[in-house]
Amino acid sequence: MSPIITLTTDFGLQDPYVGMMKGAILSVHPAAVIVDITHHIEPQAVVQAAHVIHSAYSFFPAGTIHVAVVDPGVGSGRALLALAADGHIFLAPDNGTLTAVMAAATITACVRIENRCYFRPVISRTFHGRDILAPVAGHLAGGLSLFELGPSVPLEKAVVLNLNKARIRNEQEIEGTIRDIDRFGNLLTNIDGETLSAFMNHRPKQDISVEIGRIVLTGLQGCYQDVPTGQAAALMGSNGCLEIALNQGNAARRFNAKIGDMVRVSFPP
Amino acid sequence: MSPIITLTTDFGLQDPYVGMMKGAILSVHPAAVIVDITHHIEPQAVVQAAHVIHSAYSFFPAGTIHVAVVDPGVGSGRALLALAADGHIFLAPDNGTLTAVMAAATITACVRIENRCYFRPVISRTFHGRDILAPVAGHLAGGLSLFELGPSVPLEKAVVLNLNKARIRNEQEIEGTIRDIDRFGNLLTNIDGETLSAFMNHRPKQDISVEIGRIVLTGLQGCYQDVPTGQAAALMGSNGCLEIALNQGNAARRFNAKIGDMVRVSFPP
Amino acid sequence: MSPIITLTTDFGLQDPYVGMMKGAILSVHPAAVIVDITHHIEPQAVVQAAHVIHSAYSFFPAGTIHVAVVDPGVGSGRALLALAADGHIFLAPDNGTLTAVMAAATITACVRIENRCYFRPVISRTFHGRDILAPVAGHLAGGLSLFELGPSVPLEKAVVLNLNKARIRNEQEIEGTIRDIDRFGNLLTNIDGETLSAFMNHRPKQDISVEIGRIVLTGLQGCYQDVPTGQAAALMGSNGCLEIALNQGNAARRFNAKIGDMVRVSFPP
Repeated sequence: MSPIITLTTDFGLQDPYVGMMKGAILSVHPAAVIVDITHHIEPQAVVQAAHVIHSAYSFFPAGTIHVAVVDPGVGSGRALLALAADGHIFLAPDNGTLTAVMAAATITACVRIENRCYFRPVISRTFHGRDILAPVAGHLAGGLSLFELGPSVPLEKAVVLNLNKARIRNEQEIEGTIRDIDRFGNLLTNIDGETLSAFMNHRPKQDISVEIGRIVLTGLQGCYQDVPTGQAAALMGSNGCLEIALNQGNAARRFNAKIGDMVRVSFPP
Repeated sequence: MSPIITLTTDFGLQDPYVGMMKGAILSVHPAAVIVDITHHIEPQAVVQAAHVIHSAYSFFPAGTIHVAVVDPGVGSGRALLALAADGHIFLAPDNGTLTAVMAAATITACVRIENRCYFRPVISRTFHGRDILAPVAGHLAGGLSLFELGPSVPLEKAVVLNLNKARIRNEQEIEGTIRDIDRFGNLLTNIDGETLSAFMNHRPKQDISVEIGRIVLTGLQGCYQDVPTGQAAALMGSNGCLEIALNQGNAARRFNAKIGDMVRVSFPP
Repeated sequence: MSPIITLTTDFGLQDPYVGMMKGAILSVHPAAVIVDITHHIEPQAVVQAAHVIHSAYSFFPAGTIHVAVVDPGVGSGRALLALAADGHIFLAPDNGTLTAVMAAATITACVRIENRCYFRPVISRTFHGRDILAPVAGHLAGGLSLFELGPSVPLEKAVVLNLNKARIRNEQEIEGTIRDIDRFGNLLTNIDGETLSAFMNHRPKQDISVEIGRIVLTGLQGCYQDVPTGQAAALMGSNGCLEIALNQGNAARRFNAKIGDMVRVSFPP
């Protein structure tokens, strides 16, 4: 069975860049199965890419090769990394794109991609996704060992970003932020299920308060229709984090909320 | 030959949701061939999804599995359906998404999807497309019988929407509406070929009038270039319905037309 | 190994048109590997399509079938062409879409697509991409000879567009234009590497001036980070043409630049 190669980039779909990358992969390994995760990462938004790749990879089978290209430093001295973690392989610039995966997964190898045998013959200085990572992914899909790509690097040498996790301030309060807003206008926070469970500590979920700006929601719901149409609900979203949504509406628009806005979760004293 | 699985959703392509669904399908059936129909259904627009899936399915080979996820009721009590019709399989929430297919196709089975053996082990209450429909599609692609998914349900129990068909008011007039506006600004009406033929009843097509707002077009054209550049034409569109277009221009913008606007087709008395 | 079929269109991704084309291909050849180059060509922008298909095709393996559908003349008398060039096959309306490929590649065959045996049984007059080119691509992927499609046509009969190449005005100056602006706001010019090398004629690249509007950049850089964050750089882009970019910024927005704007490259006298 041919391995899957996923793509996560900030290329958009207007330009032929994604198509070129796929051509470069298929030129090496014509049987590769290529799946787009998203190409709409904001230009140069490495932090956003870090979260997206982390949220998505585990829905793919072990053996999948994930290529993430958000690469403002392309052509400069920055390294390219290949990481084996949780049975998946990740290819990305060494700019922090893999921070969240590294924090969450069991890492079995990390190498610097240097072996030009597996690159395209001509390498543009502004498109390593196409000229290096794509053919390397093709070779890995064909069975190449990660260790053929270059030397192992100690994990502590890899660039790591501050991903701004939510923190439990005290027994009464978590302080988080809106990390992302999806197409539906749902507000995806950085308060993950583990943090929330530890905080709740068996207290009743109907007593909890979720505040964003001047809005206070009481209680955690299970799904959008647990509140009437047009009403707001706080619930655990499908990516495992606390989410604020409007049943059949757009919470971001209604509450004029933006990425980075503070979210406060509390229990009455 | 591995079956094709098509996807029609309101997820957009910004977020990783579509990628996650594909990962969930491929985790079950790695050889599945997945094709996007569109992910740009307006959020929660079940009626639009009903028309899109109906207009597109017959261009795929028999045996194709069509997954449609526009699902404002996710996580509540609404059922999920699997429908066998015209040699294709359709998976969707029981919210009317399959109304147009049910009206047009020969249905051979309809079951409620309940058998958790074919779901992902952990099921989010806000993303059944990924956690239920995707793996179920993967299992069906692998040869699973529809009847393994759950009990048959009588068709008259399925939720059905009012799809607002055009009506022949009298021998002189059809009253329809603009159902959709495509990327080219072409106005796609709800007046289908069958209705129009019955109405014309062998009267000459150059005598027909098509009115939208204050615009009156005389005669039916065969293709866009049958009128000069920048001129409007009424013609039978590629989806089998009456369409109003501007040769090399954007009819919606020129005529300031919107979905739902009335379209009147008439013969001079 | 099943051949790859690429798609380049002005259909966008909102409507089900691209999905329908893929269904029509897979109905003929279920094992075809279909890759999107882009569906965001501006409506009816044949010149843009000509550049995109030319810039992208060589990243795919020989044997790939490239289908380009930007077709304002659909349903009128215009022909459809199948071109064999550089070991690839190109299918497109005879409206100039293949101009840049024809100028650059070694052409071994050019035929007019006429044999209805390889079309869909019902042919809409407004969607030949789906009803003619898609099934024809499927048959070619299955091994059909190009010459089965219709009669050979002399190349000089094919419609050719003026692609507005940059010109060397004298030893001191090249006059070019901005041909495209990508998602990053990079300004892609029509000054290709060959033209630039001939012009430079071994003069030092740090002496060169690149002017756009009132902006003058001195010297050619190798990559975006060769200048400080937020600064502009002129460099050879990944598509082989001169490009003006902002390191981690958007040059189009900063310089208020538009497609068609003049770009002047010069050496001090």
